[in-house]
Amino acid sequence: MIVIMERGANPEQVNHVVARIQELGLATHLSSGEERTIIGVVGSPLPVTLDQELEIHAGVERVVRVTKKYKLTGWDFHPRKTEIRVRDVVIGGDEVTIIAGPCSVESAEQTISTAHAVKAAGATLLRGGAYKPRTSPYEFRGLGRRGLEILAQAREETGLAIITEVMTPADIDEVGAFTDIFQIGARNSQNYLLLEEVGKAGKPVMLKRGLSMMIEEWLLAAEYVMAQGNPDVILCERGVRTFEQATRNTLDVSSVPVVRGMSHLPVFVDPSHAAGKRALVPALAFAGVAAGADGLMIEVHPNPDQARSDGAQSLTFDQFAELTPKIAAIARAVGRTLSMPGSLAAIAG
Amino acid sequence: MIVIMERGANPEQVNHVVARIQELGLATHLSSGEERTIIGVVGSPLPVTLDQELEIHAGVERVVRVTKKYKLTGWDFHPRKTEIRVRDVVIGGDEVTIIAGPCSVESAEQTISTAHAVKAAGATLLRGGAYKPRTSPYEFRGLGRRGLEILAQAREETGLAIITEVMTPADIDEVGAFTDIFQIGARNSQNYLLLEEVGKAGKPVMLKRGLSMMIEEWLLAAEYVMAQGNPDVILCERGVRTFEQATRNTLDVSSVPVVRGMSHLPVFVDPSHAAGKRALVPALAFAGVAAGADGLMIEVHPNPDQARSDGAQSLTFDQFAELTPKIAAIARAVGRTLSMPGSLAAIAG
Amino acid sequence: MIVIMERGANPEQVNHVVARIQELGLATHLSSGEERTIIGVVGSPLPVTLDQELEIHAGVERVVRVTKKYKLTGWDFHPRKTEIRVRDVVIGGDEVTIIAGPCSVESAEQTISTAHAVKAAGATLLRGGAYKPRTSPYEFRGLGRRGLEILAQAREETGLAIITEVMTPADIDEVGAFTDIFQIGARNSQNYLLLEEVGKAGKPVMLKRGLSMMIEEWLLAAEYVMAQGNPDVILCERGVRTFEQATRNTLDVSSVPVVRGMSHLPVFVDPSHAAGKRALVPALAFAGVAAGADGLMIEVHPNPDQARSDGAQSLTFDQFAELTPKIAAIARAVGRTLSMPGSLAAIAG
Amino acid sequence: MIVIMERGANPEQVNHVVARIQELGLATHLSSGEERTIIGVVGSPLPVTLDQELEIHAGVERVVRVTKKYKLTGWDFHPRKTEIRVRDVVIGGDEVTIIAGPCSVESAEQTISTAHAVKAAGATLLRGGAYKPRTSPYEFRGLGRRGLEILAQAREETGLAIITEVMTPADIDEVGAFTDIFQIGARNSQNYLLLEEVGKAGKPVMLKRGLSMMIEEWLLAAEYVMAQGNPDVILCERGVRTFEQATRNTLDVSSVPVVRGMSHLPVFVDPSHAAGKRALVPALAFAGVAAGADGLMIEVHPNPDQARSDGAQSLTFDQFAELTPKIAAIARAVGRTLSMPGSLAAIAG
Repeated sequence: MIVIMERGANPEQVNHVVARIQELGLATHLSSGEERTIIGVVGSPLPVTLDQELEIHAGVERVVRVTKKYKLTGWDFHPRKTEIRVRDVVIGGDEVTIIAGPCSVESAEQTISTAHAVKAAGATLLRGGAYKPRTSPYEFRGLGRRGLEILAQAREETGLAIITEVMTPADIDEVGAFTDIFQIGARNSQNYLLLEEVGKAGKPVMLKRGLSMMIEEWLLAAEYVMAQGNPDVILCERGVRTFEQATRNTLDVSSVPVVRGMSHLPVFVDPSHAAGKRALVPALAFAGVAAGADGLMIEVHPNPDQARSDGAQSLTFDQFAELTPKIAAIARAVGRTLSMPGSLAAIAG
Repeated sequence: MIVIMERGANPEQVNHVVARIQELGLATHLSSGEERTIIGVVGSPLPVTLDQELEIHAGVERVVRVTKKYKLTGWDFHPRKTEIRVRDVVIGGDEVTIIAGPCSVESAEQTISTAHAVKAAGATLLRGGAYKPRTSPYEFRGLGRRGLEILAQAREETGLAIITEVMTPADIDEVGAFTDIFQIGARNSQNYLLLEEVGKAGKPVMLKRGLSMMIEEWLLAAEYVMAQGNPDVILCERGVRTFEQATRNTLDVSSVPVVRGMSHLPVFVDPSHAAGKRALVPALAFAGVAAGADGLMIEVHPNPDQARSDGAQSLTFDQFAELTPKIAAIARAVGRTLSMPGSLAAIAG
Repeated sequence: MIVIMERGANPEQVNHVVARIQELGLATHLSSGEERTIIGVVGSPLPVTLDQELEIHAGVERVVRVTKKYKLTGWDFHPRKTEIRVRDVVIGGDEVTIIAGPCSVESAEQTISTAHAVKAAGATLLRGGAYKPRTSPYEFRGLGRRGLEILAQAREETGLAIITEVMTPADIDEVGAFTDIFQIGARNSQNYLLLEEVGKAGKPVMLKRGLSMMIEEWLLAAEYVMAQGNPDVILCERGVRTFEQATRNTLDVSSVPVVRGMSHLPVFVDPSHAAGKRALVPALAFAGVAAGADGLMIEVHPNPDQARSDGAQSLTFDQFAELTPKIAAIARAVGRTLSMPGSLAAIAG
Repeated sequence: MIVIMERGANPEQVNHVVARIQELGLATHLSSGEERTIIGVVGSPLPVTLDQELEIHAGVERVVRVTKKYKLTGWDFHPRKTEIRVRDVVIGGDEVTIIAGPCSVESAEQTISTAHAVKAAGATLLRGGAYKPRTSPYEFRGLGRRGLEILAQAREETGLAIITEVMTPADIDEVGAFTDIFQIGARNSQNYLLLEEVGKAGKPVMLKRGLSMMIEEWLLAAEYVMAQGNPDVILCERGVRTFEQATRNTLDVSSVPVVRGMSHLPVFVDPSHAAGKRALVPALAFAGVAAGADGLMIEVHPNPDQARSDGAQSLTFDQFAELTPKIAAIARAVGRTLSMPGSLAAIAG
């Protein structure tokens, strides 16, 4: 950490800062230029908020943190990319993985027919919401436990692993009894107690990016899960909130290479929530894979016009089936392959 | 609700939309202009996501919702401004209320000395965090139950009512045994299950605005609390996230008159979290009251340089004491008075 | 246009709105529901700000505009995609076009060597700034006329068409004497008099998106150029400003399919300015083409470490040459081909 | 400037950075800790983009600029607050100044009646647009020279100084022949050639903040004007663009104290453009003065419902007259007085 004193800070002010640092058991290294003094802070661990504290001492202009705040999610102590095995799918390796399925589980028929359709088209995991966070208390909030049972049935029939959202610590046991991957939604991305509890549950966790979450904060949220001993975290970009109103959210496709540079964790893209409109989903799915995403998460529904949630952004079976060969081609163009169930892989190749 | 068909939508498309609306037990009202057809939807209740559903039917250009999504928080069915009595303070009436205290409860001495100081200067409620949400898992997270006990002790000694944050449903009983007002933090502002559970707990709730929450979403979050039968919700603007980096957040002072126009609920301003820097707090506190806020929530610490959280934005006792007469003067300028404990009120007047 | 009256608006208020509309020579169509009255406005042309005007009449809740504000840039009256021929390149057709070159023209050697290098790797247009907008008045502002001469010389030697920025109406003649395409920078994207003057200059115009420009405003800015009789406008997405600080700007890749849905104009992506960091440029370039962009604009420099502007985001010759085959592969995956000079096309195919 | 090398950067990389710095005639100061090396850059002037350049050298993690980019606008070399005399009004001193008038000059009667009304209520400058920037080319763009003549006539009749916008360098002479203060609009806030030309014109300049302009960029834009020898720049906050849609823009009221901390220039608030809605204007005007603004700029119109631009946000004469006594009271509460024409001052006091 480096403390930059103001031009004209007096020796007393410098001494005061130095004394405070030494009080914390840390060493200092002074560098006095013609115009100003700079104090290096040496030793560890640095208190996490030391920069904020020092910044308000008299005579201090700015404090610069040199070391990163995130540790477990960074490359420094984990130089290999994380690969996560879920049933027979490996997430985060050379293959690009597609998760598809309805926004909400509405019925056994709706979910199981979707599972068959998305598997036939190339998806290897099934998504579906049993507990749904909704902006208004008057909207449909999911089938709850019945939804989880339907997802499990769909897994049994198709062999697809399943992912579903958990919204509150009290539901972790029940959801964990069914799901293969826990999903943490954007609105809960900084619900730290939920992150910790889900980190103890022993299954992979997909962490969606919050609507106005800086990438470093996203890694720190993942750090909450990893600090509980769970190494299997998947990040999922789903659009951030900006001034633009033409899309539901603004897909920050740059987050894919940025996360890659900062972290060993796999990163997915959810084009459906970003777009909010079906017609835009293909372009955003292609962009995500082209930018290097490890996978996609796409909403598909047998009859989107009558979906109980997010119908506007869900693809039909046919639209999804048209998409996957192009995704496979883009994956190849950037040196990846599309993870595909069984014999399909050969065809797509 | 009004469905605007595309220029050139054919009769079949119009009929399809009409049929879907009627299938839901609603009536339609057609208006065919030269260029396009407009379908009015009549009846109630309208499904909350009907606009999204209809928007994706073929031939539909846009759907306009006429009625508001929020009900309990709006003026339509509650034409009087909400006033909330907490011990001997009335929030939301003619008086402007100041809540002050440390970011975190760190010790009995720190908290109780602060309580005395802020009371002497004009605050009527004491804030203090016992459970702290932190961006990094490695930061100080509060004293927990011990913190609650200290707050209760401070209340006993000073008579100030207390407010403290609750972060997860499992803590509601414990926090509720001590606090006068539950605080829901910005990062939990769309943690809907927490909102519902706290709505059942029978005490007032202060709901901070999320970092990228539109005002309508904020009212819908308050609606979650109110829908549990709890009418006593206070909104608190604490800055939103924008591109500007000179402040920790951007105080959206306009939200004060905007909320006033939309809702009967009291609205507060938290200048400390918005600014992130002590030197900016007075200007933002003044601006909040001038814009019509029902109260302020300000961080004060006996020794901000050594605070375990948010020291950079905390005021000293002296700084806080300098502030309140000016706040009182601004309150008078906009037709309000500053709520003040006992004999102080006379002096300030 | 539809005027939605408030629940409880009285007949007098309705009559007042109706009278004002009729005063403008327009007809009205009333629809009185149980709860509220809705007034349709019939006739044309509608004053562009009529919605704003009516919205403030007593008793009016909201005004909904049915017709679009942009005309020349939309599909309604121009159902074929615009193709622009610049020397032997066609922009906006089936081919994806790459514009490459240095941020600033610094010397003949730097520019001409870059022109040869980018042509060899697959670019078909050369970019280079002679007049540079800079955030600070103390930064390098370009070589001016000498820069234009160097660009022309590079064109002569390589056959590449050139594009360069014009910053003010007084420079249009001079810049126009050299360039093949005028570039309007992000900071001038709503400099309306510049847009009109450049619209009269008889050459294609590339209009960069402003830092916080909504897509509809971008089309309206293009409308300024087109309204002068110039049909040859190219839009270029270069990132918008958001809260995220990990990238210089946030590339709004969704703008590519959104613009395609709204307008017949070609749309490009500039990954260099969006990223601000060289390492991110390839991922964003791939994402742009995958999302359907008609072309890319990429900064390339013989020695980026010593560039006089934007060195951090410029690619070396080798890095650029590695990029283009992958871009070609992605273009094919989405049904396009990469426009390539002469014999290279065969090789890439 | 401080260059922070990566943990594990090798000596060769350090040497390469040092060599580059020395090549520019600057000295270096090395500090090698256990974990990483930090290079101080000593000497001046530093190339403005040196930080960007060094950041991309191999082994460099981050570059921290210690000195500010803006000079003339900062306190370092101009320790007294700037006061600007315009006719008999002093801007930037102890008094708060109100500028009021119509968005557009529409007729002599409209403008002159407004001038009399706002003067009677306490304004000391008259605003009015003769050249109007409009998002769409089809909107009313002002009366041009005729508008300037009307403003001059209003000045003659009322004694109020006038301010009006100039949009392009070619108009500076004409506008300068009439106006007392040049206004540069938000969309032209980074039109650098306009800033330079207006800087040469020898009259005060009010520079509105751009829609997504960081405060440092705003000061750098002011620096363009000041670098031409013109010390009389007034900054005007008018709202920035965020995700919130309830207001036309989001008034960043914090910018007032932030600018005060960074610069000696006067800073105004324009509540009308920020709000976009008349009902919100008073609250934002009060907030601006409470936050320490040196003045306000408010739109007033004799008949806002029929204004040719911005009617929705314009106040009537009566609404404006109600506002000023409250503004005066708030000004007093924060230690200022309201600048008032002649005998009015006594009354207001």
